[in-house]
Amino acid sequence: MSPPADSPPTIAELPEFFEYLGMSIERATAEEAIVRMQVPKQLLSPHGPVHGGAISALIDTAIGIAVVCRLEPGDRTATHELNINYISFAAKPVVIATARVLRLSRTVAHTEAEARSEDGTLVAKALGTFGVFRRA
Amino acid sequence: MSPPADSPPTIAELPEFFEYLGMSIERATAEEAIVRMQVPKQLLSPHGPVHGGAISALIDTAIGIAVVCRLEPGDRTATHELNINYISFAAKPVVIATARVLRLSRTVAHTEAEARSEDGTLVAKALGTFGVFRRA
Amino acid sequence: MSPPADSPPTIAELPEFFEYLGMSIERATAEEAIVRMQVPKQLLSPHGPVHGGAISALIDTAIGIAVVCRLEPGDRTATHELNINYISFAAKPVVIATARVLRLSRTVAHTEAEARSEDGTLVAKALGTFGVFRRA
Amino acid sequence: MSPPADSPPTIAELPEFFEYLGMSIERATAEEAIVRMQVPKQLLSPHGPVHGGAISALIDTAIGIAVVCRLEPGDRTATHELNINYISFAAKPVVIATARVLRLSRTVAHTEAEARSEDGTLVAKALGTFGVFRRA
Repeated sequence: MSPPADSPPTIAELPEFFEYLGMSIERATAEEAIVRMQVPKQLLSPHGPVHGGAISALIDTAIGIAVVCRLEPGDRTATHELNINYISFAAKPVVIATARVLRLSRTVAHTEAEARSEDGTLVAKALGTFGVFRRA
Repeated sequence: MSPPADSPPTIAELPEFFEYLGMSIERATAEEAIVRMQVPKQLLSPHGPVHGGAISALIDTAIGIAVVCRLEPGDRTATHELNINYISFAAKPVVIATARVLRLSRTVAHTEAEARSEDGTLVAKALGTFGVFRRA
Repeated sequence: MSPPADSPPTIAELPEFFEYLGMSIERATAEEAIVRMQVPKQLLSPHGPVHGGAISALIDTAIGIAVVCRLEPGDRTATHELNINYISFAAKPVVIATARVLRLSRTVAHTEAEARSEDGTLVAKALGTFGVFRRA
Repeated sequence: MSPPADSPPTIAELPEFFEYLGMSIERATAEEAIVRMQVPKQLLSPHGPVHGGAISALIDTAIGIAVVCRLEPGDRTATHELNINYISFAAKPVVIATARVLRLSRTVAHTEAEARSEDGTLVAKALGTFGVFRRA
């Protein structure tokens, strides 16, 4: 489950796992969130491709940011469930995830995301259901 | 997608991401695979719980090992898709995943897994479809 | 999405789709719901096995009942998402689904289910996230 | 699991479940498959919306057709797994599913689909992994 997030984090306050997993936020708006992962060499497999768990962490993070961008300050979100279909191996160590909210209600966000290599190769597609916890 | 694996890895040849993600194999048999994650502090969120991506990487790894334990030497597997339902926050930094193969055919493995905290709390449940690539 | 349900239906008030899809409730308790489908011949494929959509409808229904059995009168539920893994063909026209709630919170139910043939063959396994709508 | 299909069916040879579930094929090409469901009144819930299982059957069918349109004569496909996220209730009894293949390999098809009401309302989105069984 993704840790709850209060608001779109600024660079200064990004959780430590962003750096540990090589992630940086490229875009965080009400329309979509884009997160880039410069995959740490430790998360490449002996055979070359990026570990699936790294891609999953990237997608989960991108969706969480997309949801937070649609919430009010103080609201939080957490992953209820995430389904990821791995389409192609990510052979190169940069993977970029784009996420958006399909529908937002008081208690849940229906979301989708995709991950691509820098050359545009589709690496994974995902559907996710995220819980929304309103402050008031 | 999980990197293909040829056979149940021995300690000496475990991919580097095992150490990077704090994972160790507790059991790897034809019946089930058990993988323990001593979550690196960098993968804890500012709020405490373990990052969902860490749990996803753990489950993906445990399933991959469970599948490999059912294959012949030289056969490989890779994640087609993985669906994870996050049941409770993992508040403590040790999470243990247990995975098993529900059905294995020539080209695909249907699998399931669960992740629990050391105190037994159910953190996540998963269903996964893994591709199988036979050498011969 | 499953139609919202107010309370565990009695035979007299079962929605018409129960009969249309050959479904009957075998058990509906706080622990689990069991729904039996005598698959209408129209939902068998030319090749014999039961149409996957029939099994999906069966599982969705069983989970909905399992959730309702844990709610208060007047509360409702609806499917947020459902992931079904089809393990074996259902060659015989009776399929039985067993569903249970893994965790229930104020706004969501995490659930699982499985479907088996009468001879015990595992036909499908499922994880589902269902929304909960409290009256008060 | 979807019954295996040999080739895009012609009207004359459509399985009986098409009529029973009110489905008709609007488009079946290598690019996409579109299936329309005039939901039988028996599959509407007492509250109005279409039963989730009907939508699931529709999506499973549309994806199966999309895959078959990419195969050679004599090849078959069957659902490995299907994940459906229900976005909005289908309040009107016509639902249209559009499916396409994201990637096709020798043994598996990665697919996606969406279902909409006639007015364009997004009812559901899906990701599916379908097995491919080559004749030769």
